[in-house]
Amino acid sequence: MPEFNKRQGVKKYLITGFSGFVGRHFLAYLDQLNEPVAVLGIDRGALNFDLEVFRNLHCSFKKADLLQGHEWEHLIEEFAPDYVVHLASFSSVAFSWVNPISSFANNTNVFLNLLEKVRKVNPKCRILSVGSSEEYGACGLDQLPLTEESTLNPVSPYAVARVSQELLSKVYVDGFGCDIVMTRSFNHIGPGQLDTFVISSFAKKLLAIQLGNTEPVMLTGDTSIVRDFVDVRDVVRAYDHLLKHGRSGHIYNICSGTGVTLKSMIDQMAAILGIAVTQEIDPRLVRPNDNKAIIGSLKKINDEIGWAPRIPLDTSLRDILDYWRSKSVA
Amino acid sequence: MPEFNKRQGVKKYLITGFSGFVGRHFLAYLDQLNEPVAVLGIDRGALNFDLEVFRNLHCSFKKADLLQGHEWEHLIEEFAPDYVVHLASFSSVAFSWVNPISSFANNTNVFLNLLEKVRKVNPKCRILSVGSSEEYGACGLDQLPLTEESTLNPVSPYAVARVSQELLSKVYVDGFGCDIVMTRSFNHIGPGQLDTFVISSFAKKLLAIQLGNTEPVMLTGDTSIVRDFVDVRDVVRAYDHLLKHGRSGHIYNICSGTGVTLKSMIDQMAAILGIAVTQEIDPRLVRPNDNKAIIGSLKKINDEIGWAPRIPLDTSLRDILDYWRSKSVA
Repeated sequence: MPEFNKRQGVKKYLITGFSGFVGRHFLAYLDQLNEPVAVLGIDRGALNFDLEVFRNLHCSFKKADLLQGHEWEHLIEEFAPDYVVHLASFSSVAFSWVNPISSFANNTNVFLNLLEKVRKVNPKCRILSVGSSEEYGACGLDQLPLTEESTLNPVSPYAVARVSQELLSKVYVDGFGCDIVMTRSFNHIGPGQLDTFVISSFAKKLLAIQLGNTEPVMLTGDTSIVRDFVDVRDVVRAYDHLLKHGRSGHIYNICSGTGVTLKSMIDQMAAILGIAVTQEIDPRLVRPNDNKAIIGSLKKINDEIGWAPRIPLDTSLRDILDYWRSKSVA
Repeated sequence: MPEFNKRQGVKKYLITGFSGFVGRHFLAYLDQLNEPVAVLGIDRGALNFDLEVFRNLHCSFKKADLLQGHEWEHLIEEFAPDYVVHLASFSSVAFSWVNPISSFANNTNVFLNLLEKVRKVNPKCRILSVGSSEEYGACGLDQLPLTEESTLNPVSPYAVARVSQELLSKVYVDGFGCDIVMTRSFNHIGPGQLDTFVISSFAKKLLAIQLGNTEPVMLTGDTSIVRDFVDVRDVVRAYDHLLKHGRSGHIYNICSGTGVTLKSMIDQMAAILGIAVTQEIDPRLVRPNDNKAIIGSLKKINDEIGWAPRIPLDTSLRDILDYWRSKSVA
């Protein structure tokens, strides 16, 4: 670490939630830039991938719980990051209903701890505060596409935590002069995502059907709902562009701008696999308060920093299926 | 406690932040109702007044920190309140700038702990969630008077915590079926308020001038700002009416509907005391981000439950001055 602190032109990224789905894709993105970059990853879980894969990065890892200041606060001083990419979160809406206190603490309090440390010892460091389309919550079809000016109406403990994080970010920018760029990131998809997320679970199931491991029947919730899916590799490119070119104190939607039904996602993956499946609704999987449609506007991020998704939906779905195929063979 | 649990018609109030300014006035209000009421007060500080003063109440106290579940959670089961009046808070905006983590934890986390316990063991209990006009934050003069539909733009860590509390309340009502009434309470005044609050500090200073203990010069911040002051005794009456008649999941402004400059408050108190004072601005006391004017609309609470303030401003100011006189003599 120390040698990197002295080298000119090296950009230093501190990434929280390092071991997660988005963290690994963010690393892959930085790696292919082939620029002088140092990364310090922290995560409350153990490191679950090989850092050596990223050959163009100077990369290190520290296991630390952001709720335990002594485990990580010294790193803000020692590593002196240019950027903090705050990916650590309890991102499950379902979990937030089961354990609201833990969900709230591991989102809001964790973020506040990080803000306070950065403010006190390294206030010039730019922070990326990752929010969620869940912040919009209950919205009518007449409000689509959702812009950054749309009303927030969070309907889960998770969504409230994300709104709180965003409001705290604004206070730290306006009141303390911190440098924070905020996102509202829509539904991520991509290879490596846990099967607790809907598209990843559909892909895993469809592959099992293709391999003959299970009956060709998909038991689902309401698949007529419309969501705005964006490939995680496009998302991490947006994150890095926002760190470099976004405006402090501003919020940016990260989305495709296009709505797709869950049913259509299943149909497209079944077509790629060349299989026929029957879809059946399991009432236990239907969420009573689910929005009929969520679609974002990407006008602001596109106008300001020129970002738009590049990866076609078909490519995302093929890569997700390939990921599960590699796992089933391995 | 047990005998009260068996008696019919006794309404049981659990009051958090019991030892505070509002808590004592709430007790006085309940006492003069002369109805069968049992009160259990909890506070992280020691009891600082004599419970025997309230002759018509069955009143008990338990010292407990709401962040420490083992100190109080059993009380929700044992006392089985009909109403929880959640007055506990770190209500200083200034403190929230100095120690955002402690302020946030002692507002948001405390409230979430309370919600979770009530939800799990006593979900029929009605909770009064006290919010603040600070939630409105930065607003233009064209937005006055502020209604419950006005945009929230919180500008301090304290204000963000209050917005978070309100959003969590809505989620607990809509998602868990809890029974919560929310307020946005404007600037309280009244006898017994700490001199860290502006009107109370002015009154104390003016009395010292009258008594000849100090020069007749008031060093203040910007006294041209306009605020909506409401007597704490009117506030606690609103709280009890909302517990009995407010709609779950709804937010109610508690305000006078009238704006008064701080300068006018000083002038009125000086006139009551029959003294002449010189006002001087101390630039260190001018808050850079202070709103020029904050005035609320009380239409909703007035339409729905018929509440409006009853205590004239002149009475409030005389009682505040009498309070400080009694303290200076004592």
